[in-house]
Amino acid sequence: MAGSSFGKIFQITTWGESHGEALGVVVDGCPAGLSLCPEDIQAFLDRRKPGNSSISTPRKEADQVEILSGIFEGKTTGTPISLLVRNTSQISKDYSEIASYYRPGHADFTFDVKYGFRDYRGGGRSSGRETIGRVAAGAIASKILKEMGIEITTFTRALGDIYMEDEDFDYQALGQTSTGIPNLKLHQQAELYVQDMAKQLDSVGGIMDCVVTGMPAGIGQPVFDKLDADLAKAIMSIGAVKAVEIGDGTLVSSMKGSENNDSFRNVNGQIIKETNHSGGVLGGISDGSQILLRAHVKPTPSIFQEQSTVNRHGENVQIQIKGRHDPVIVPRALVVMESMVAITLLDQLMISMSSKLSSVVDFYKTK
Amino acid sequence: MAGSSFGKIFQITTWGESHGEALGVVVDGCPAGLSLCPEDIQAFLDRRKPGNSSISTPRKEADQVEILSGIFEGKTTGTPISLLVRNTSQISKDYSEIASYYRPGHADFTFDVKYGFRDYRGGGRSSGRETIGRVAAGAIASKILKEMGIEITTFTRALGDIYMEDEDFDYQALGQTSTGIPNLKLHQQAELYVQDMAKQLDSVGGIMDCVVTGMPAGIGQPVFDKLDADLAKAIMSIGAVKAVEIGDGTLVSSMKGSENNDSFRNVNGQIIKETNHSGGVLGGISDGSQILLRAHVKPTPSIFQEQSTVNRHGENVQIQIKGRHDPVIVPRALVVMESMVAITLLDQLMISMSSKLSSVVDFYKTK
Amino acid sequence: MAGSSFGKIFQITTWGESHGEALGVVVDGCPAGLSLCPEDIQAFLDRRKPGNSSISTPRKEADQVEILSGIFEGKTTGTPISLLVRNTSQISKDYSEIASYYRPGHADFTFDVKYGFRDYRGGGRSSGRETIGRVAAGAIASKILKEMGIEITTFTRALGDIYMEDEDFDYQALGQTSTGIPNLKLHQQAELYVQDMAKQLDSVGGIMDCVVTGMPAGIGQPVFDKLDADLAKAIMSIGAVKAVEIGDGTLVSSMKGSENNDSFRNVNGQIIKETNHSGGVLGGISDGSQILLRAHVKPTPSIFQEQSTVNRHGENVQIQIKGRHDPVIVPRALVVMESMVAITLLDQLMISMSSKLSSVVDFYKTK
Amino acid sequence: MAGSSFGKIFQITTWGESHGEALGVVVDGCPAGLSLCPEDIQAFLDRRKPGNSSISTPRKEADQVEILSGIFEGKTTGTPISLLVRNTSQISKDYSEIASYYRPGHADFTFDVKYGFRDYRGGGRSSGRETIGRVAAGAIASKILKEMGIEITTFTRALGDIYMEDEDFDYQALGQTSTGIPNLKLHQQAELYVQDMAKQLDSVGGIMDCVVTGMPAGIGQPVFDKLDADLAKAIMSIGAVKAVEIGDGTLVSSMKGSENNDSFRNVNGQIIKETNHSGGVLGGISDGSQILLRAHVKPTPSIFQEQSTVNRHGENVQIQIKGRHDPVIVPRALVVMESMVAITLLDQLMISMSSKLSSVVDFYKTK
Repeated sequence: MAGSSFGKIFQITTWGESHGEALGVVVDGCPAGLSLCPEDIQAFLDRRKPGNSSISTPRKEADQVEILSGIFEGKTTGTPISLLVRNTSQISKDYSEIASYYRPGHADFTFDVKYGFRDYRGGGRSSGRETIGRVAAGAIASKILKEMGIEITTFTRALGDIYMEDEDFDYQALGQTSTGIPNLKLHQQAELYVQDMAKQLDSVGGIMDCVVTGMPAGIGQPVFDKLDADLAKAIMSIGAVKAVEIGDGTLVSSMKGSENNDSFRNVNGQIIKETNHSGGVLGGISDGSQILLRAHVKPTPSIFQEQSTVNRHGENVQIQIKGRHDPVIVPRALVVMESMVAITLLDQLMISMSSKLSSVVDFYKTK
Repeated sequence: MAGSSFGKIFQITTWGESHGEALGVVVDGCPAGLSLCPEDIQAFLDRRKPGNSSISTPRKEADQVEILSGIFEGKTTGTPISLLVRNTSQISKDYSEIASYYRPGHADFTFDVKYGFRDYRGGGRSSGRETIGRVAAGAIASKILKEMGIEITTFTRALGDIYMEDEDFDYQALGQTSTGIPNLKLHQQAELYVQDMAKQLDSVGGIMDCVVTGMPAGIGQPVFDKLDADLAKAIMSIGAVKAVEIGDGTLVSSMKGSENNDSFRNVNGQIIKETNHSGGVLGGISDGSQILLRAHVKPTPSIFQEQSTVNRHGENVQIQIKGRHDPVIVPRALVVMESMVAITLLDQLMISMSSKLSSVVDFYKTK
Repeated sequence: MAGSSFGKIFQITTWGESHGEALGVVVDGCPAGLSLCPEDIQAFLDRRKPGNSSISTPRKEADQVEILSGIFEGKTTGTPISLLVRNTSQISKDYSEIASYYRPGHADFTFDVKYGFRDYRGGGRSSGRETIGRVAAGAIASKILKEMGIEITTFTRALGDIYMEDEDFDYQALGQTSTGIPNLKLHQQAELYVQDMAKQLDSVGGIMDCVVTGMPAGIGQPVFDKLDADLAKAIMSIGAVKAVEIGDGTLVSSMKGSENNDSFRNVNGQIIKETNHSGGVLGGISDGSQILLRAHVKPTPSIFQEQSTVNRHGENVQIQIKGRHDPVIVPRALVVMESMVAITLLDQLMISMSSKLSSVVDFYKTK
Repeated sequence: MAGSSFGKIFQITTWGESHGEALGVVVDGCPAGLSLCPEDIQAFLDRRKPGNSSISTPRKEADQVEILSGIFEGKTTGTPISLLVRNTSQISKDYSEIASYYRPGHADFTFDVKYGFRDYRGGGRSSGRETIGRVAAGAIASKILKEMGIEITTFTRALGDIYMEDEDFDYQALGQTSTGIPNLKLHQQAELYVQDMAKQLDSVGGIMDCVVTGMPAGIGQPVFDKLDADLAKAIMSIGAVKAVEIGDGTLVSSMKGSENNDSFRNVNGQIIKETNHSGGVLGGISDGSQILLRAHVKPTPSIFQEQSTVNRHGENVQIQIKGRHDPVIVPRALVVMESMVAITLLDQLMISMSSKLSSVVDFYKTK
């Protein structure tokens, strides 16, 4: 497979550059019969648009989705769903400067080495706008998961030094703050922190958390296509992510077995785990607990301070990046993480339908 | 694809259970013309065998590899290489107890839910012995990478609380200690720590680090099949790994852009990065620096303390696991991580040969 | 993989229904650096448009292609190329009748069983318009193959009873006739034959031949992904194809080994085959001769005679199909066959670059 | 994917050379809970062994299968099933002659070009023995299909000039003749014909037919992964096959629509087709009728007459092949075709479980 497709049965293929005509995604393998309208997808896309808050770019992006195929009379037909978003707000400008050097922390250099040249306008294919296709597809996957009772929640756990402890999680504030931190006080602290960094012409990293509830046990594959392995790939494939954790994550390396093991218990006829250090996956297969995921996001590489780099003639130069860039990526990336998780889970759920012979045989015998 | 294959062009398929007849791997897509003998593979397999050190299981595993296909006159032929290791040391014993309940931290419960029943002897397919196939294939991938000048080093960064700082790294001790920590003093501390935990009938987690040198720039894909995304999946697919980091990893979430960006410099006609916070990958494509990876490994779930769980009739029970289990997995898992990294890199290197039109056209025009 | 993608490295994903908003294709894995403009693609698309000849539908289809991504400054960037064709000429009409029954020879019934319902407008996804995406992608693959000196020629071998013998092949008439038969006299006979059938409210099948010249030896895989096996799938996946042949094809079943074997000869330092019964492939790998392929196409299932069928309430009914339908598919399908062959060959050429260790090592050592 | 794997969910990977240590297959994605013993597989393997009849090689091949993994207490566990057959009867002999030249009709030349050298002993990977893995896997797929009520029948339709008309099909003779022709009189004629050709140091081609009964409607994918396209690849990937037909096959090119269309009828509440020109597939999806497939097999390329070829120094030479070779491949290839069809159908059946949203949602809601 070439590298712009993800998933095996529920498979998405994204395309598009930051300043090209449009961006989009083809969703193949979506089951037939799902009610789907542009608003379902637009709601997700709107979550990744730059807001009006003081910590996101003042750039406006309309990002109106068009559904071009795969829907008939308001329902998915089982054939590929093609979704398209026109690039309307991209300003025509002189890119000769940005074309001339390699921005630190960006893929300019690596694209040139790999392909021989690059579309240097706004980051081209490695722009954050590439995630539009992921989010549009994620809206569909999420809607299907909801029909099964599976819900995904993502939020900001930390921005820079501002870290939210579990006890500070405020369900009322979930999805209500422009930082994505579900705690009003910490949100305000973080907002100030980011503004301060922006004033210093600098940028900020952060932590995204994702919690999946309602996931049935028994989903995943035991060896390479472990549920957590596929999730790790899905999340690490998001531009600025540099670390992925599941369950207790990095803490497990300094834990003892007696601390890390989760006891099984029968509670009212249901087998559950008393704790969830595993994060909902054992041996690559979902264990019926919540799936707990964490991603560490690097600070926006586009900073306005002077930086050292090399131009395309190989000369050492000092540069100063201009333009409109978010001082932090995390708030807008939450829905991207949620989308990648949704796509991965749905694909694994569809694959896992044939794990038992009786499931396969009964499916066709009762047809 | 079913879940026991990994890689696209250089593709491995593993098979086998802990207490079945044998375990093995089929390596398909290996280029023709590589000198390969059983000793090349045995050397890797020996690194994952339980040693005689005080911190690994006294269990003996011969793990002699047989090459069944794909080699002719000492060279790979381009056809699938089938490698097999017989299970010889598995003790015939009464498994009725272990069959009857779900061990905490193991995949017993999830296998039963997924498949309806399980091979309960020694963990079956989710045993650590499953990694034999990975390591055998990794030996081949590593040998090819070496011919290109690419070398992979893995070592133990931490066991439980014992953490080795960068300045304590002792190149002389690399690969010389049974803990895998390349520092004799810290190795001894760690050994004592693990022994102490074992006496407490408990187990220990740890951190594995992997450094790749000689990797050319320009390898990887920019969107889903990012080099770091594929590596994350490769590493997270190793049994007990709960977190994966690249470059500065979890640290990036509290860093500023001015700290995290790596400046490019022309040094003697070569474009290099002055620092390597990125860990050798930018935008999913290798940047020519060292690739820096880290995995957090949970403590061995098989501990000898009494634990609460549920039996297969759904009754709450207290259990005490018997047998021979490593109190820590890390030292033996180093070569597994190294193998998965090697396989991933080689596959991406092979795919990336066709990134430029001129490469493809020249390849066939000069034939 | 879901079923709308084809190819492994050079991978296409098509989408769109006959009467939806648009149809299109995403071409992923196209090497960077190919000069590409809309006209390159339009030229291929124009070959599949209904002409003005007396044997094709009077329906007009503009089928103007838009390039939405993957091209910068006139060259492919190595990122996905998204191509889109708007559905402009689809007449808004009452489809309630066609929605109500299952047309014989069409996929109406099978779609309803598989998906529970269907987009019944103009055949939906199983319309011949689905091939627009294939042809647009085929234009790109063909252009790359040409740069390597590989050319693909397709022509009509037979329409109904009118069959062209090898000795009647007239190179001057190639691509010059609306039937696709490269012989003016036979073309005229065929045209009259088809017109006659159309008057009888009936339709006609035919044979498409494809010849590939300039294909280097050594391309393909020896077992499942044989070059001829992949070509067979590519061709059989075209709507109305019911048989695929390579080389002597169906004739081999009544041949003797002494007749069917091709002798190798050294002619002026080049190893060639004296005959080409094999059709250019031995053991799944190209042998350096011309690749010779043949496809048998069924008569258009949309005929205007009264037919018996079942409506969606399961009642037996007599129907009479209306509308504008080609009495024969072959002339417009030639470019579809050519496109599928081009895509398959290019993908296999790209995969085969890594067959030898020395190729892989040299590629990266000289970087 | 590298080229030795076939199938997406039910995926097989074969390995092994004619004169290597062993040959085998890994079957991944087989559902858990199938009763499976070596005899199930041996029965299939025995059907491809050279018999004692006068038209097959006097070579003896024991071909005893070993099950190495994936079975526990007599049932499949859902994990990879590794099957192995040792090469026991391969005679150690001097291969220097066969190594020195390129046999006409064989893959010697193409392997050398592709890989730089080859395992020349007995055809290596391109030997007919490669099909052992396919047949072993086919035995498993067939057993599962039988549990769903799907049966596959294969027989010889023709050997050389001896062709069996439909009216001569004798159900009693099915599987009872060494030629595979289910008609005693034609079998005897064919036997004499083959013996006569063998005396002339020549070989014979033939036609294999395959009929699938009990296939439910609605299985397959509408575009590239059409059921018939996947079957075409599966069958064309068998060594000597040069043409594949479905339903009326090559006849459709000279048929009219009024002859080729199958009318739907409601017969006792069941929607059936009155005829089956389509061969059980419409628009790439099964239509509930019998699936009808045909393969044209070339005459064995190993003939004992003098032949012209080139040696590996590029010199023109006359050669005479020695050894033990079947004068016709067809009778032993029947079970290979049956196996490839079974694997393809099962894989598509498993993928098609998730075509409808209600199927997916109900599957997990009722869990």
